[in-house]
Amino acid sequence: MTRLRMGMVGGGPGSFIGPVHRIAAELDREIELVAGAFSSDPARSRVAGDSYRIDGARAYPDLETMLREEAARSDGIDFVAVTTPNFHHLPAVRAALAVGIPVICDKPATATLAEAEEMAGLVRDAGLPFALTYTYSGYPLAREARARVAAGAIGAVRKVVVEYPQGWLAGEASGKQAEWRVDPSRAGAGGCIADIGVHAFHLAEFVTGLRVTRIMADLGTVVPGRLLDDDCQILLRFENGARGALLASQISVGERNGLRIRIYGDVGGLDWKQECPNVLVLHHIGGRTELIQAGDAALGTEAALASRTPGGHPEGYLEAFANIYRDFARQLRGEPGSLAPGIEEGVRGMRLIDLAVRASAENCGWIDFPK
Amino acid sequence: MTRLRMGMVGGGPGSFIGPVHRIAAELDREIELVAGAFSSDPARSRVAGDSYRIDGARAYPDLETMLREEAARSDGIDFVAVTTPNFHHLPAVRAALAVGIPVICDKPATATLAEAEEMAGLVRDAGLPFALTYTYSGYPLAREARARVAAGAIGAVRKVVVEYPQGWLAGEASGKQAEWRVDPSRAGAGGCIADIGVHAFHLAEFVTGLRVTRIMADLGTVVPGRLLDDDCQILLRFENGARGALLASQISVGERNGLRIRIYGDVGGLDWKQECPNVLVLHHIGGRTELIQAGDAALGTEAALASRTPGGHPEGYLEAFANIYRDFARQLRGEPGSLAPGIEEGVRGMRLIDLAVRASAENCGWIDFPK
Amino acid sequence: MTRLRMGMVGGGPGSFIGPVHRIAAELDREIELVAGAFSSDPARSRVAGDSYRIDGARAYPDLETMLREEAARSDGIDFVAVTTPNFHHLPAVRAALAVGIPVICDKPATATLAEAEEMAGLVRDAGLPFALTYTYSGYPLAREARARVAAGAIGAVRKVVVEYPQGWLAGEASGKQAEWRVDPSRAGAGGCIADIGVHAFHLAEFVTGLRVTRIMADLGTVVPGRLLDDDCQILLRFENGARGALLASQISVGERNGLRIRIYGDVGGLDWKQECPNVLVLHHIGGRTELIQAGDAALGTEAALASRTPGGHPEGYLEAFANIYRDFARQLRGEPGSLAPGIEEGVRGMRLIDLAVRASAENCGWIDFPK
Amino acid sequence: MTRLRMGMVGGGPGSFIGPVHRIAAELDREIELVAGAFSSDPARSRVAGDSYRIDGARAYPDLETMLREEAARSDGIDFVAVTTPNFHHLPAVRAALAVGIPVICDKPATATLAEAEEMAGLVRDAGLPFALTYTYSGYPLAREARARVAAGAIGAVRKVVVEYPQGWLAGEASGKQAEWRVDPSRAGAGGCIADIGVHAFHLAEFVTGLRVTRIMADLGTVVPGRLLDDDCQILLRFENGARGALLASQISVGERNGLRIRIYGDVGGLDWKQECPNVLVLHHIGGRTELIQAGDAALGTEAALASRTPGGHPEGYLEAFANIYRDFARQLRGEPGSLAPGIEEGVRGMRLIDLAVRASAENCGWIDFPK
Repeated sequence: MTRLRMGMVGGGPGSFIGPVHRIAAELDREIELVAGAFSSDPARSRVAGDSYRIDGARAYPDLETMLREEAARSDGIDFVAVTTPNFHHLPAVRAALAVGIPVICDKPATATLAEAEEMAGLVRDAGLPFALTYTYSGYPLAREARARVAAGAIGAVRKVVVEYPQGWLAGEASGKQAEWRVDPSRAGAGGCIADIGVHAFHLAEFVTGLRVTRIMADLGTVVPGRLLDDDCQILLRFENGARGALLASQISVGERNGLRIRIYGDVGGLDWKQECPNVLVLHHIGGRTELIQAGDAALGTEAALASRTPGGHPEGYLEAFANIYRDFARQLRGEPGSLAPGIEEGVRGMRLIDLAVRASAENCGWIDFPK
Repeated sequence: MTRLRMGMVGGGPGSFIGPVHRIAAELDREIELVAGAFSSDPARSRVAGDSYRIDGARAYPDLETMLREEAARSDGIDFVAVTTPNFHHLPAVRAALAVGIPVICDKPATATLAEAEEMAGLVRDAGLPFALTYTYSGYPLAREARARVAAGAIGAVRKVVVEYPQGWLAGEASGKQAEWRVDPSRAGAGGCIADIGVHAFHLAEFVTGLRVTRIMADLGTVVPGRLLDDDCQILLRFENGARGALLASQISVGERNGLRIRIYGDVGGLDWKQECPNVLVLHHIGGRTELIQAGDAALGTEAALASRTPGGHPEGYLEAFANIYRDFARQLRGEPGSLAPGIEEGVRGMRLIDLAVRASAENCGWIDFPK
Repeated sequence: MTRLRMGMVGGGPGSFIGPVHRIAAELDREIELVAGAFSSDPARSRVAGDSYRIDGARAYPDLETMLREEAARSDGIDFVAVTTPNFHHLPAVRAALAVGIPVICDKPATATLAEAEEMAGLVRDAGLPFALTYTYSGYPLAREARARVAAGAIGAVRKVVVEYPQGWLAGEASGKQAEWRVDPSRAGAGGCIADIGVHAFHLAEFVTGLRVTRIMADLGTVVPGRLLDDDCQILLRFENGARGALLASQISVGERNGLRIRIYGDVGGLDWKQECPNVLVLHHIGGRTELIQAGDAALGTEAALASRTPGGHPEGYLEAFANIYRDFARQLRGEPGSLAPGIEEGVRGMRLIDLAVRASAENCGWIDFPK
Repeated sequence: MTRLRMGMVGGGPGSFIGPVHRIAAELDREIELVAGAFSSDPARSRVAGDSYRIDGARAYPDLETMLREEAARSDGIDFVAVTTPNFHHLPAVRAALAVGIPVICDKPATATLAEAEEMAGLVRDAGLPFALTYTYSGYPLAREARARVAAGAIGAVRKVVVEYPQGWLAGEASGKQAEWRVDPSRAGAGGCIADIGVHAFHLAEFVTGLRVTRIMADLGTVVPGRLLDDDCQILLRFENGARGALLASQISVGERNGLRIRIYGDVGGLDWKQECPNVLVLHHIGGRTELIQAGDAALGTEAALASRTPGGHPEGYLEAFANIYRDFARQLRGEPGSLAPGIEEGVRGMRLIDLAVRASAENCGWIDFPK
């Protein structure tokens, strides 16, 4: 059984997410990184190729070259992984799809809603596998939460609290990771909302299986001199009438990566925290509370499949990310069962950014979120 | 040294908060319950008197009788504690103050904002001690949090997240405690917002030392057939420009009494949870996190004074409540140092209810909260 | 209904446990502190009387005077509470019982095993109510754990881990609380084992309902210059063959009062921590884990009776202590249902100290613990 | 830069630890699995080869064939990873070293102490890289704990509590993982002590930098019909006089993989839990407690190097395991800095098993543990 061959776009020296994509892709040995256009600077691309220990000849100076030369090989790449800053997603996806190469792309989909809609059209027309790495939906117990909600464990969903506090941008934004995220020309119209707010939004829709239909938004730019939002408070209404709140922040000093979702139905409640990802709390009305843990015999199929070790052997972020890649590999092989987010979820995320930025600026109270 | 003598209004058979007031008042032996008008039903008032083990002759059929007969005794009551449902607070306070008797009153101040403003006038004119039992501000580490913010430990406050989820009203409201709280004629215009939202609001202003100046409110009535709100989401702006969110709910299945406050400044963050009240988390920018615990040598004066046992011997709700009474006793003795909330905080709580109910109904976006 | 009248022995200025006994005794208003021989120094006894706000005439210079004068009053004391250092317990108990006055006594029972056996004889002969304040058995969820074990929730007990780490004696022992505890003439033959090891031991027997029948002990004196043990490691065997470990320490820097017990049976496990006392973890074989919380509807009678507030309103050490007093009040009134430890548990604790000190010194491997 | 080529011994169908070795080895792309003798059954070895997606020709029927055929290739294996049950470790290591191939071997070193001593001689004589996968010493914060102790953060070590409760063998041992572990012919003389006790022991010596010099052991066989120990309680004494306790169990129902170590010195304390591996608690005498978290700027070099993601992105068991492989790769490349355990630690673990089994059987109190 050969492995699927991946070509990376982005992920050059200093990148956080490039190496993460590489590890995640290869974790289950279904995929192998073989090529990359890691940087727009050819020399840096070669350095990155060395650091990934791939064949030096396959560290290309740009995406176009990679697509062309890999197409000429019998063992050329089967797909590309786009790990560049947001503004570069659309051209990369467009180029790959144009030559029949499937794409897995980092989130958010693009820099603007218009770009996302264009991307949706391209994906639709190409008819090729496409996935978006909303990582957190790859955690086994986030998937278990989704399965439990779907199975009625908490009854009809009434209330969702999803929060995502971080503190790393509370001061000056310095370093490669920080700088492009606070630069509208590279990040797009959203700062915190685009970087992490969309993760929280996707997780809420993923776990509940419900779509948001209205929002009331309050985005703020807290750090002096910053150009994009760094703190978001958004009230939600879901298609079934359920109420919700989404709090995301990058100025919450001391918070690392505190994504958490709580969902309350008419007969139960669920609570899951990304930083302690192997436990899911399930409350039953009347007072009984259970801890559902990774590795438990009672886990549903999807959560069980998404784990690699027995209970008590913690899996984390890289393994969750690998689950998205495993799903994408399923798509590439034409197998069913993928839970990986696609372009539709990508467009919804971009719509959230677009609406929240506008609604917040206009203080317009509730506004509709097209279904 | 004799003890201050307390007469209770309300707290009859089936009451939750009456016995709590009794225990809290007497915990430090500065106060003694000696009389009460525990119920509007004279027989039930006598039963309650027996259950409290007071002199049967001092279990009165109504407040007026208590005030009159106690005034005639040389060992008559020094103050009254009002523990009745909200709609009865104003007449009780009016009657006591009219005969020169100080009052400690349960929260929220009254059933309506207009009543609270009237009460404020009465308290001002009477010039007598008055306190409101926003219990949670009595916890040692809530007071420590306040002192740390005031001392600059987290720098300028930028963001506040205060939440208060409960689940006990997720189903039918049954039982004495539930029934009056969901009845507008006894509770007033607010349900969840009046029962627990005001606690969260007070705690936010208490700990930050900042006043809310604008809100955007989303109150919901989730349980079918209910007449008052049972789930509240309110976005906040403080006088210094700090942003905030207040989430209170009584339909969050599985949550007991999850009051929690997180405050982020430009150089630090604080996190305190009522259900685990003896630990305060303090984050410093740059990554250092400390646990501040009850009994620690580093605690400030107010927190140290508010503790009765060494570290590791958990104190809880009753002791926090007792700290409010201890403060009130200071006022009665003419001593300084009370941190107990007064009528001003009471009016602010009622204003929150009034504004939130109206703003939510009108979907008006941000509205001002008078300072 | 009048209250039971308590006279305290010990608890003078600077005492930690005296005020705790007072609060605990009075919390439910079944008992009232009315008299005391608070110190062997008459002036200090008067100061203490003032601090407790009792009638100055009833702050006596010594126990004998208290017993004599109170006997002459129509409203004299109904019992005495002994809160002095260990070496003074036996004479105090002897004097009270001799004049027909019931006693509640702090732990450990005495300073030596021989004294405890003498005390047992006195209690037996007197036929009067007697209780020992092993506080931690008063916690609602410790009682729930006991009830669950008895009901078979975890099956046959196989393994017990009870630990009690503290760190407050890791440095020089200074201050009134520390000094007598490290002085053999006042504390007896045991240091850490007598101060907290016996609590752990009692809790293990209380919750499991099983008696220890063999021990292997390793007591150490870690802090240079100390005369008594300050760190204890004891392996246990119970009457049914179950295995166990008891770890107690006063040199574990950073630990406050970390009493914890874990009990594993053939079909389940239980885990309870004193510093987080309102949650009990229950594991079922096969992987299901439940959180049992104070206030839950599923609590058994004893735990339910031992709580004063609804779920989520934390109760702590003082309330647990009050539950021991409430039990003792039941005994005084001739009512059934007391779970308070008595002299038998007191003798067992002293036997533990005696055996552990000897066995540790002799490195004798396992030795029998008489049933 | 080419990758180091790994050949696996063991890890066939149904293996837990084989796939873990593969993932861990490849995580950082310094190593690639290229060959294996995955099972003593040639057909099963081929099935495993397919599951690992290696070249079918390199899934060998036995180790000897693998060593011979790989030696004949220009791209033959650089080392072997031994992942078989304990009794097979020595022959595998012997065969590999004999042909000049370095080895990384799963723990415990062997099935008996005599075998371990023989293995030590082989490793010494061969002069080739050798490592033992005591996984838990690969966790970043376990390494941070070690560095902090070495730097004096807690002063002189006085007390160590290391515990490792599991519950998965509380019932009948069924399934491939369980069966060989409870079979003396495959596991050796130790059950729980050999499977997990040695992990705890190694971690204690690793973190403290101190050697155990005496033990007092109590090993039990709790489940009826079992032939090896399934519950271990061992008291420890370290070379500097520090005291300790090691509790390991496989019958503690509800415990997953609860390895935890607490170390107390004369000025501080440390607490680390494998199931929550990204936090290290550091207590300072006098009451200050800090949380040290993965990704913190204050981490030492070794912990920082052992992390792949920023703070708040949890890493777990596989990443810890990968750190052992990364260390081994350093050894293979002749670079300094490896913290991986070697044969010396392997012999110490086997000595622990040997001594504990004998001492427990003989009830001999303290016995010396050769340094």
